[in-house]
Amino acid sequence: MTSAAESLPRGDSDPLVRRERDARGVITLTLNRPQAFNALSEAMLAALQRELDAIASDASARVVVIAAVGKAFCAGHDLKEMRAQPSLEYYRGLFAQCTRMMLTLRGLPVPVIARVQGIATAAGCQLVAQCDLAVASSAARFAVSGVNLGLFCSTPSVPLIRNVARKPAFEMLVTGDFIDAVQAQARGLVNRVVEPERLDAEIETLAASIVAKPRAVVAMGKELFYRQGELGIEAAYAAAGETMACNMMEPAALEGVQAFIEKRKPRW
Amino acid sequence: MTSAAESLPRGDSDPLVRRERDARGVITLTLNRPQAFNALSEAMLAALQRELDAIASDASARVVVIAAVGKAFCAGHDLKEMRAQPSLEYYRGLFAQCTRMMLTLRGLPVPVIARVQGIATAAGCQLVAQCDLAVASSAARFAVSGVNLGLFCSTPSVPLIRNVARKPAFEMLVTGDFIDAVQAQARGLVNRVVEPERLDAEIETLAASIVAKPRAVVAMGKELFYRQGELGIEAAYAAAGETMACNMMEPAALEGVQAFIEKRKPRW
Amino acid sequence: MTSAAESLPRGDSDPLVRRERDARGVITLTLNRPQAFNALSEAMLAALQRELDAIASDASARVVVIAAVGKAFCAGHDLKEMRAQPSLEYYRGLFAQCTRMMLTLRGLPVPVIARVQGIATAAGCQLVAQCDLAVASSAARFAVSGVNLGLFCSTPSVPLIRNVARKPAFEMLVTGDFIDAVQAQARGLVNRVVEPERLDAEIETLAASIVAKPRAVVAMGKELFYRQGELGIEAAYAAAGETMACNMMEPAALEGVQAFIEKRKPRW
Repeated sequence: MTSAAESLPRGDSDPLVRRERDARGVITLTLNRPQAFNALSEAMLAALQRELDAIASDASARVVVIAAVGKAFCAGHDLKEMRAQPSLEYYRGLFAQCTRMMLTLRGLPVPVIARVQGIATAAGCQLVAQCDLAVASSAARFAVSGVNLGLFCSTPSVPLIRNVARKPAFEMLVTGDFIDAVQAQARGLVNRVVEPERLDAEIETLAASIVAKPRAVVAMGKELFYRQGELGIEAAYAAAGETMACNMMEPAALEGVQAFIEKRKPRW
Repeated sequence: MTSAAESLPRGDSDPLVRRERDARGVITLTLNRPQAFNALSEAMLAALQRELDAIASDASARVVVIAAVGKAFCAGHDLKEMRAQPSLEYYRGLFAQCTRMMLTLRGLPVPVIARVQGIATAAGCQLVAQCDLAVASSAARFAVSGVNLGLFCSTPSVPLIRNVARKPAFEMLVTGDFIDAVQAQARGLVNRVVEPERLDAEIETLAASIVAKPRAVVAMGKELFYRQGELGIEAAYAAAGETMACNMMEPAALEGVQAFIEKRKPRW
Repeated sequence: MTSAAESLPRGDSDPLVRRERDARGVITLTLNRPQAFNALSEAMLAALQRELDAIASDASARVVVIAAVGKAFCAGHDLKEMRAQPSLEYYRGLFAQCTRMMLTLRGLPVPVIARVQGIATAAGCQLVAQCDLAVASSAARFAVSGVNLGLFCSTPSVPLIRNVARKPAFEMLVTGDFIDAVQAQARGLVNRVVEPERLDAEIETLAASIVAKPRAVVAMGKELFYRQGELGIEAAYAAAGETMACNMMEPAALEGVQAFIEKRKPRW
């Protein structure tokens, strides 16, 4: 199988993270260190952060797809690199760097879709959980397997339990066992599972649906979605009502609703 | 099919929201604006608020069923009415009115069951999510589809993510796509799915189960259920223990437990 | 069927709660009051508390299994005992005692697995929900059925809604109806369902997986898991990053990661 993401030219982006962009603003960031199972080394984290920071201030970006080259989607942190620097301060800095990248995904004004073609373990599984949406190949498998090496997947547990119910999440964390893509979907870790050859088509379906909506509206909605989820229900409704009122005053909404009333397509 | 709710006489309640009540205190509020897909106009919201406020202080009410006439359960806000008054203050007031009604459902001392016979979109899907329980016809479909018009369903997202896991909820919100009743049940949005002709029977099963329990006990339980859900676990247990101790001192509980010990039915 | 837990000798532990322990530190606490469906009387709660407190300070304990003798796993509080002392202060004390035991399960540095061989109702269902993991026989059934006696399962609702989605949880609480083991698994209340004769083997699979991991690492992970789950995502990541950095400095992790790099088994 040759997927679109894998066959696109490299361009001049960081060789660790290939960047491709189509005319609509769909940006694919492809982890490109297959020989190391796309481990999140310091350099890989820095490359991702650089790309995401650029996207955050790019008004024409519409969707980010996180993809990967090779058999693994992402095997988590780079263990050789970690083992070489056994100091508490180094590890604090490393996890802070990783957390910053993860929270940048969540804070981006555009939706982020994980394209999971292979195994996603430890911080690689965290990366899937932290994306807004995820589509998995039926060949993908998922584990938070650090506990097998004596390193409990504590940071991966943060987005994991915000997607997956308590007992199945704890079971994954304490056993380190793999689940397959169908189980991952049943537990809420991924949105859709398709045959490997259908992976790009399914990503395209989601991306096309998103780019068909006004950018500002999706940005307001995503920001509110995560913010209200951390509030009590009364504060959540107050925040949502304010977002909704502001959203309705956007030209895109006034035109969209007018078009609906006139039974025509909106002119965005 | 002629359902019980659809064939009952109108009585003297608001024509927008028909009210029926049986001898047990099961009150059915039927959205009755089928030509507008039961849109939540200001008048509809006011009529619902009026009915719910009356029920809140009605000691003989036991269950509320929210039903609807026509092909749609509820298509959300009244877009023509909204479009006609494009001011931030108007929209703030409108969403505050809708939120007040939604929180009244949650605060009622009796359980509220959505009877979803057709499509439930945007604030109509919010209405289903905000009810305590929901039974859907297999013909029902659900979407938070405002994003298709440029109006992200931010207020619907509040009860949605308190029922449905993060990634499937975000997918619904950003794509605006429909899900069917079986998917809605799998995701936690509705409790049960039945063939259209079985909808009233299934609602009756739930209602009969509720009216067989002491009113005061259900009221204490519902109030505590939502309150503790917003607390940390230690505070939640403290609140629940106090409710439970007070509940046990209720004559209904003392008699119910005594009856259980004596292997007879309680005399409530 | 004669299960391992049921055939083990009593030893000198409390007759209400039999304690068995294997060479690995897998401790089975067996509720042993089958004629009363293992009701959580004051004496039973005290016996459990005593055992759990001892385990909390036992550095060689690795896993706790909560099992039961007889047809029921646990039928909740002892209703005869409760009914005999109808005073608010008594009930407050009783629920505080039960809550203390439940929170001790959660706070233990080792994982706790419920071995559910029969019915689990009211505080018995709470006990399953409060354990970190649960394996059920296909013959097990679950209900929060206090409402049938006029006593809404408010304290059971605390761990219930931290495992099960809002609407199915409310339905169980307000109807008091039973669900079977397969439904319990689908809703997140138990991890695995097996035929009765496979129950001990499945518990052993989980226990063996846990004892194969370093004790200190599992303890750090479990503590962080529940703590971060009550925080906003930024605070959760900060807490998790600190735990992860400290975990990485543990000799078990440094050796585990080194072994992984050298493609050998860790020497723990």
